[in-house]
Amino acid sequence: MADKRAVVLLSGGLDSATTLAIARSESFQCYALTFKYGQRHHREVEAAGKIARFLGVVEHRVIEIDLAVFGGSALTDSAIEVPKDRARLRDTLVVSLSNPSEIPPTYVPARNTIFLSYALAWAEVLGAFDIFIGVNAVDYSGYPDCRPEFVAAFEKTANLATAAAVEGKGRFRIRAPVINMTKGEIIRAGTSLGVDYSLTHSCYDPDERGRSCGRCDACQLRLKGFAEADLKDPIEYRITNNE
Amino acid sequence: MADKRAVVLLSGGLDSATTLAIARSESFQCYALTFKYGQRHHREVEAAGKIARFLGVVEHRVIEIDLAVFGGSALTDSAIEVPKDRARLRDTLVVSLSNPSEIPPTYVPARNTIFLSYALAWAEVLGAFDIFIGVNAVDYSGYPDCRPEFVAAFEKTANLATAAAVEGKGRFRIRAPVINMTKGEIIRAGTSLGVDYSLTHSCYDPDERGRSCGRCDACQLRLKGFAEADLKDPIEYRITNNE
Repeated sequence: MADKRAVVLLSGGLDSATTLAIARSESFQCYALTFKYGQRHHREVEAAGKIARFLGVVEHRVIEIDLAVFGGSALTDSAIEVPKDRARLRDTLVVSLSNPSEIPPTYVPARNTIFLSYALAWAEVLGAFDIFIGVNAVDYSGYPDCRPEFVAAFEKTANLATAAAVEGKGRFRIRAPVINMTKGEIIRAGTSLGVDYSLTHSCYDPDERGRSCGRCDACQLRLKGFAEADLKDPIEYRITNNE
Repeated sequence: MADKRAVVLLSGGLDSATTLAIARSESFQCYALTFKYGQRHHREVEAAGKIARFLGVVEHRVIEIDLAVFGGSALTDSAIEVPKDRARLRDTLVVSLSNPSEIPPTYVPARNTIFLSYALAWAEVLGAFDIFIGVNAVDYSGYPDCRPEFVAAFEKTANLATAAAVEGKGRFRIRAPVINMTKGEIIRAGTSLGVDYSLTHSCYDPDERGRSCGRCDACQLRLKGFAEADLKDPIEYRITNNE
């Protein structure tokens, strides 16, 4: 078991932190991969480094890629506004792809496809066949590349794309252990595995002191999750914590 | 027809140059995308710029990505040697994946998956649904990510990954028009479309003056193609042109 390797995509948010804890609990030697991708703040990259150290990885690589050159997202283009307070307008933030007009402007074109492609390259070089990604299709913002059918399609692609798979050295598995959990379930699972959520960062629009806004989709999903788990969110918000 | 857009992956070699010419012949407004990926020479990136200007694209972007950080390939790691003269040992360079030990050290892990992921991101932002890639599964070096089944799997992934597809704005098509052609057929097709092959570059191991070695897989496949097409290769070799 000592030499079972996995590549874990680590954004610095609570889903990927929990996913890393789950991979560690399965005795994987973890190689964490974080992207700087022209997002408007680097707070989550710092969070990823802290989580990687806290949970124990063999190596943590941060790769800078310029998704901002393509534009098209509120997360990479400051001309597009991050939506706020969407939960106040609706019963729930959970959106359905049966109503695709709900895909929000924070969607980044092809982001998870690009992230998984890099993870696949590194995994092949490492001789790792498990790639962990913290996507979630329950309490999520409606991004199409967080759904189980996307993960399954990428896994199939990975096994056709690579020499390691074609040569029969192994079969790549794209592992998304929190994909069917609610945010509350994710937080409970991570807490039981010892995740320190004070190290994580979720907000799309933190202030200069790093405090979360409490109003963007990411904050509202996070707060809903802590409320559901009946736990206090240990991070600092610039508005009153509404749990 | 004037506003039909396509993203075209352009390496600077003859397959992608021919692919761009085919996309132009189908009246696409072409957006060419080239990667600098830590390859040992940048001759092919220069070639891509010349071809883009010659064939006429709306925009040509060169994106630098660091595949060398992962290592694992003779094309990104100078410690691994580029194989030479493989055609002299066998009747043909064409290898079969039924003999997967033939995947050569010039294979770059997950390269085409990464390239197509970026192309998908740009296509989605541009409102383009056709992505052209010059992969070839006939006269090729045995890379798994050049096969039709890989292209089909990526296309499926693309249509699950993106807001544009899920929202019903269109369906992405990964177009690989030269995938089933021999090198000779590719060169004949490109010649009939006016491609100037003196602008292209194929060699994995050119000298400091940019002359091709004539001995690596890429050179040998290229020379075989010109011989088959009964045409003279217009580029300069540092060994005697053996066509």
